Amino acid sequence: MQDNKCRCGREPFYFRRQSGEVLCKRCFSKGIERIVYKTVKREKLFSPEDRIMIALSGGKDSIALAHILSKIEKSYGTDVFAVTIDEGVRGYREEGVAIASDVASRLQIEHHVFTFKEAYGYTLEEICEIAKMKGIQLLGCSFCGILRRRLINRLALKLGATKVATGHNLDDEAQTFLINVFRGDVERIGRSRTKPLVAREGFIPRVKPLRYVPEKEIAIYVYAKGYPLYQRECPYVRFSLRDEIRDVLNRVEENHPGTKHSIVNVSDSLSKLLEERLVSSKIERCKVCGDPSSRKVCRTCEVFSLLGLHES
Amino acid sequence: MQDNKCRCGREPFYFRRQSGEVLCKRCFSKGIERIVYKTVKREKLFSPEDRIMIALSGGKDSIALAHILSKIEKSYGTDVFAVTIDEGVRGYREEGVAIASDVASRLQIEHHVFTFKEAYGYTLEEICEIAKMKGIQLLGCSFCGILRRRLINRLALKLGATKVATGHNLDDEAQTFLINVFRGDVERIGRSRTKPLVAREGFIPRVKPLRYVPEKEIAIYVYAKGYPLYQRECPYVRFSLRDEIRDVLNRVEENHPGTKHSIVNVSDSLSKLLEERLVSSKIERCKVCGDPSSRKVCRTCEVFSLLGLHES
Repeated sequence: MQDNKCRCGREPFYFRRQSGEVLCKRCFSKGIERIVYKTVKREKLFSPEDRIMIALSGGKDSIALAHILSKIEKSYGTDVFAVTIDEGVRGYREEGVAIASDVASRLQIEHHVFTFKEAYGYTLEEICEIAKMKGIQLLGCSFCGILRRRLINRLALKLGATKVATGHNLDDEAQTFLINVFRGDVERIGRSRTKPLVAREGFIPRVKPLRYVPEKEIAIYVYAKGYPLYQRECPYVRFSLRDEIRDVLNRVEENHPGTKHSIVNVSDSLSKLLEERLVSSKIERCKVCGDPSSRKVCRTCEVFSLLGLHES
Repeated sequence: MQDNKCRCGREPFYFRRQSGEVLCKRCFSKGIERIVYKTVKREKLFSPEDRIMIALSGGKDSIALAHILSKIEKSYGTDVFAVTIDEGVRGYREEGVAIASDVASRLQIEHHVFTFKEAYGYTLEEICEIAKMKGIQLLGCSFCGILRRRLINRLALKLGATKVATGHNLDDEAQTFLINVFRGDVERIGRSRTKPLVAREGFIPRVKPLRYVPEKEIAIYVYAKGYPLYQRECPYVRFSLRDEIRDVLNRVEENHPGTKHSIVNVSDSLSKLLEERLVSSKIERCKVCGDPSSRKVCRTCEVFSLLGLHES
């Protein structure tokens, strides 16, 4: 931290390496909110008629998202509410769910908690135990993400949401772009951009208003706003390609500030080009559960069938 | 190395992790040549009327390139010759130049050696010393590359070449794609692919027949063909973003074989899309030297002017 003052004259709170700015707490927070506001406006993420469902895990990203959206969108009269998914991991998830409830009540927004147990008949813990017993190697966090995404889409439909907002930040997005590059997945590169999604049959559009905010600055924003930082790690987390890429990006960003932004900008330019060219995959209905999917059997049903389980 | 035999029955020489193949020396070498042959054919890199100038540094990539091209192209009656640039670094460059001469005489191809000193009036050593004395931080190897590229283009024009072939391999190309991504340089991504280049005024098209061959396999190919491996490192080499990315890619490739290929495939898909869309930058003439350039003052003249030097 340099010891000069913020341009407004207040005491320094944050030094932004990339731009060389020294910011007080107030200017820092306003700056973060401005990035989100500009993203929402430029990408036309919402309209006043929307009913926005925030995926509120209780982690820092979703807290920042709920705080900022309830501030911005309420001023337009847009309807905002939050949903928390309790995957069911004892000794880990309870704290996040409790924080999510506190945040929603502080922001005075409607809040719903749903569990994997009610939705699927099994907690994440039970699923992982069954996989372990059967000697099946689950794909780390990605399989939990598959189950969560389907549940979120179902809940959005049930609760009348017209958009789902998630807390993906700049780091997540830069990592995801590189993962897609490393895997040679051009189609996913074309689907990565936050864009004015039109609802496709049975799918509620998902938007990422924090896509241009670095993870570190989100953590500091949440701290500056007086929220608790929930740092526990899921016991089922696995070391993955994403972790390797996260380390690399943090190292490169350290030596070349601005790299994460550059990557997301490249991702945007390319996905704009690709969106126009790639024929969007046809939406079908999963043969097993009937949910919309680009596959014949959706990935959730694939996981359950692999484990020999049946949804309740 | 696994102890089973090559599918042809010969003794094993190389185990290709990505595909699981065990190969004898002969099948390995033929395989490398086939990749290059297919690249040349698919991308229509050459025609029998071409006069191909090989940029032969004396390093492994350029040796493999000279060996394979003189084999393939001579069979079509295409004219192939080699040029070596001696940048002028005592105790380092002499060995490479000597190896290049030996290679050319073994392959019975026309060979020319040109020096920075004759072309620019200064050796690389002299330029680096002047920069040091003046306290100017040169951009590591990239500035030497700028000078070498202009000289190669001038020599190609002078010697009547219609194509310049360089030894860039899969690792180089994957690294370059990521560097462009990390720098946010979408335009360069659009220019990266080996493609049937048409000569633009004053620029001789440059092609990369080894673009799909991993660096490691090139080294082994050159060894298998009985060439010396020239391993010395230039004393002016600097630690760069490319080195960081090289390490990362080698680590990721180790855990996820095929990653480098995936990256170059993504690069190809994207640059195909971009080629159609990006208006190619207009070629002007450098105001100082008159050489073709996309800039008002070409990068070579920029470097010389920065150092207060004048070309001889």
